Amino acid sequence: MEEPENLNIHALTEMILASYDEEPSIIRIEAKNPISSAAVADLIVNLRCLVFAGFFGQKRLKADSIEYYAGELLEELLYHLQKQISRALRQVRTEGWDAIEESGRIACEFLARIPQIRHVMATDVEAFYDGDPAAFSRDEIILSYPGIYAILVNRLAHELYLLGVPMIPRMMTEQAHSLTGIDIHPGASIGHHFFVDHGTGIVIGETTEIGNYVKIYQGVTLGALSTRGGQVLRGVKRHPTIEDHVTIYSGASILGGSTVIGEGVVIGSNAFITKSVPERTRVSVKNPELQFKDDGQKRNVEFPQGEFWDYVI
Amino acid sequence: MEEPENLNIHALTEMILASYDEEPSIIRIEAKNPISSAAVADLIVNLRCLVFAGFFGQKRLKADSIEYYAGELLEELLYHLQKQISRALRQVRTEGWDAIEESGRIACEFLARIPQIRHVMATDVEAFYDGDPAAFSRDEIILSYPGIYAILVNRLAHELYLLGVPMIPRMMTEQAHSLTGIDIHPGASIGHHFFVDHGTGIVIGETTEIGNYVKIYQGVTLGALSTRGGQVLRGVKRHPTIEDHVTIYSGASILGGSTVIGEGVVIGSNAFITKSVPERTRVSVKNPELQFKDDGQKRNVEFPQGEFWDYVI
Amino acid sequence: MEEPENLNIHALTEMILASYDEEPSIIRIEAKNPISSAAVADLIVNLRCLVFAGFFGQKRLKADSIEYYAGELLEELLYHLQKQISRALRQVRTEGWDAIEESGRIACEFLARIPQIRHVMATDVEAFYDGDPAAFSRDEIILSYPGIYAILVNRLAHELYLLGVPMIPRMMTEQAHSLTGIDIHPGASIGHHFFVDHGTGIVIGETTEIGNYVKIYQGVTLGALSTRGGQVLRGVKRHPTIEDHVTIYSGASILGGSTVIGEGVVIGSNAFITKSVPERTRVSVKNPELQFKDDGQKRNVEFPQGEFWDYVI
Repeated sequence: MEEPENLNIHALTEMILASYDEEPSIIRIEAKNPISSAAVADLIVNLRCLVFAGFFGQKRLKADSIEYYAGELLEELLYHLQKQISRALRQVRTEGWDAIEESGRIACEFLARIPQIRHVMATDVEAFYDGDPAAFSRDEIILSYPGIYAILVNRLAHELYLLGVPMIPRMMTEQAHSLTGIDIHPGASIGHHFFVDHGTGIVIGETTEIGNYVKIYQGVTLGALSTRGGQVLRGVKRHPTIEDHVTIYSGASILGGSTVIGEGVVIGSNAFITKSVPERTRVSVKNPELQFKDDGQKRNVEFPQGEFWDYVI
Repeated sequence: MEEPENLNIHALTEMILASYDEEPSIIRIEAKNPISSAAVADLIVNLRCLVFAGFFGQKRLKADSIEYYAGELLEELLYHLQKQISRALRQVRTEGWDAIEESGRIACEFLARIPQIRHVMATDVEAFYDGDPAAFSRDEIILSYPGIYAILVNRLAHELYLLGVPMIPRMMTEQAHSLTGIDIHPGASIGHHFFVDHGTGIVIGETTEIGNYVKIYQGVTLGALSTRGGQVLRGVKRHPTIEDHVTIYSGASILGGSTVIGEGVVIGSNAFITKSVPERTRVSVKNPELQFKDDGQKRNVEFPQGEFWDYVI
Repeated sequence: MEEPENLNIHALTEMILASYDEEPSIIRIEAKNPISSAAVADLIVNLRCLVFAGFFGQKRLKADSIEYYAGELLEELLYHLQKQISRALRQVRTEGWDAIEESGRIACEFLARIPQIRHVMATDVEAFYDGDPAAFSRDEIILSYPGIYAILVNRLAHELYLLGVPMIPRMMTEQAHSLTGIDIHPGASIGHHFFVDHGTGIVIGETTEIGNYVKIYQGVTLGALSTRGGQVLRGVKRHPTIEDHVTIYSGASILGGSTVIGEGVVIGSNAFITKSVPERTRVSVKNPELQFKDDGQKRNVEFPQGEFWDYVI
């Protein structure tokens, strides 16, 4: 290729190098052991193989070799977890600690929590099967439902978050967000028998607490009332508390750190809630008035849709 | 790495094996010929190469070798379809059938429907080109529009669904859901000249029936009124019927198995519809009243936006 | 496999070939130098490595070899950009131009704009860090925030769009749309310090103009009032103008080419705006009335949520 005058490869390189000098905050240079997105993605793949053994691995899982399968996977996971955790911790600690020992201890503690995560995931799969008439089998749910994937990654990332590991948990949940459209911050804590249907557009913020047997549909936000405080609000409880047996239909928003949705509450589609709701209440938006227009004439037509609850509950 | 005492790899493996014993429902062990997500993803890739020949394959497609291209692709597809369909059928049938013959028959029948699918996809591409002022060319639509991808996968999966193949159709549409944010159940039937714009957040349920020349925008739900019946509702018509020439703007929800949206109806943004709408009607939400606040004073300001229809229709 | 009679591979191939003859508009045959989705995806990968040097490459970036890193990447990019741009231009120009020279010139001009893009991306990263209390560090934002990815791809694609390159810009932004759920047309122009939170479901149309220091939350649409004109509307300003320091909360829709949202305006969640809003105004939807139902009795309960602004501003 003939290059236009004054814009050959050398000129371009000079320009980029000048740009690197001018904006050094968005390059990463001489970084010791940087965290890699690809490594974090691999961790998720292997952790899923460990939790749902036999569903996603390359080989058919046999009863008499399952010990070797699990052992090999754990060895691999322990090695890479320790490595990535060590790199993440180096970002926040600068002195007086043994990176290898501490990251190894955290990796072990995390892996020791997998049985508990498996126990809760089994309840989620049941909740999905019971809740969705379109579900064919539990295998189908594990193999293909985006909600199960997003919850699994949240449950894994949440344990790393509790263990004080920076960056990796959020990188994990953002990978799930990309694949599922479901954005659950690793800080959010979620009880057992959790059911997410369809899921696209769901946002669940960092300090959200969710009880057991909760159902959430597409487009629901469990968010903060304001983030104008920005970094000042870090660590403050900004997102709602959802108690047991709550159902939240599509498009509803529930906002605020002191907002508590009581046990057994049902929130109708598109409701916008900024205050606590007492237990066993059903809250719905009064259906916005509909306008009909027909044959060029404009008129408000009676359109007795009834209430949300006549149909949904 | 030095492992912390009591949490070496052997201890972790023992814990996981105990967990596998306690929660056997979410592992797959000694499964004969399990269905693989990766194989299903490959099927979609090859089916897309067959339908939109020359757009996605590795090589430039030439006129004098198109026969070999199609033949080779069909041979590959027939082999893998037969294999995966056979595995899927084994999940529901246990006796008195010839897996190889039946899955081969279904795979052939499915492939024989590709010309009809191609015929309808050509009408979809036209509908996209006519409907979107931002569309540069039909090639651009085929190469990059998420709506076209989601519709293609639905049309393919729907035929497998009609042929009684379990699991694979849903795995196919969930893969498209992951890539596009558009969640169309393989049970949904969709007429020709279908147009989906932007698409993220669209949910179309299993028993939805959609006519010809229908346009749907981002965030639209065609859903069920209640799924509290769970598995009891399986197979029941739970989702709406949309007749020909209907347009549904962004964020609208249309719910219920007996809800019929008549021919030529236009549904405005964010409408929440739970009853049938007669043909050639335009339904809009009365614009929610807006509140202005300015310079510390709070007041309701007249904000004559006019009606939705003044602008949109 | 035994094939069912009359549906062997030859019969299927004949059927597909007949279909290719009948629907030639959705195949691409004898296309000289067709644009490839895979090549466009590779361009994005390499451009991201160039902009955020050291974050996504395979190797650790060292100070004393950064010149070679940049030079090699630029050489690779120049080669592939020139090739793909040349292919794209061939779709619109048929005579009297030198494809190699023109595409080379455009590729160089585009790469010469990367320093300016880096400059603006650095302001975006700052806006993300300042705006999100859940952000741990700038590295985390660059490595994992979907909003940063979508904005980067828009800024890159927008320059190619301004340089008159067809198809490639849209293919780039649709790839980002697939990964993030954020659909920003390459035609949209966006100022510095742009902040997108969560992002899923955002739609920003082709002729949108966005000023500096703008914040946009999940599910916001900056759209057209009507696209019934279809291709007739191509090139017409159909999408709104958003001035500096505007914040638009989740689920709001702002529509129309003559709609201008003035400096410092705040738009509340779910507002539906079709007319201009004067500067420094806060607009909110009057909270739809909520209905409570409790213990079988139905009643409208006072539910003084206060106003949106009491909480959010």
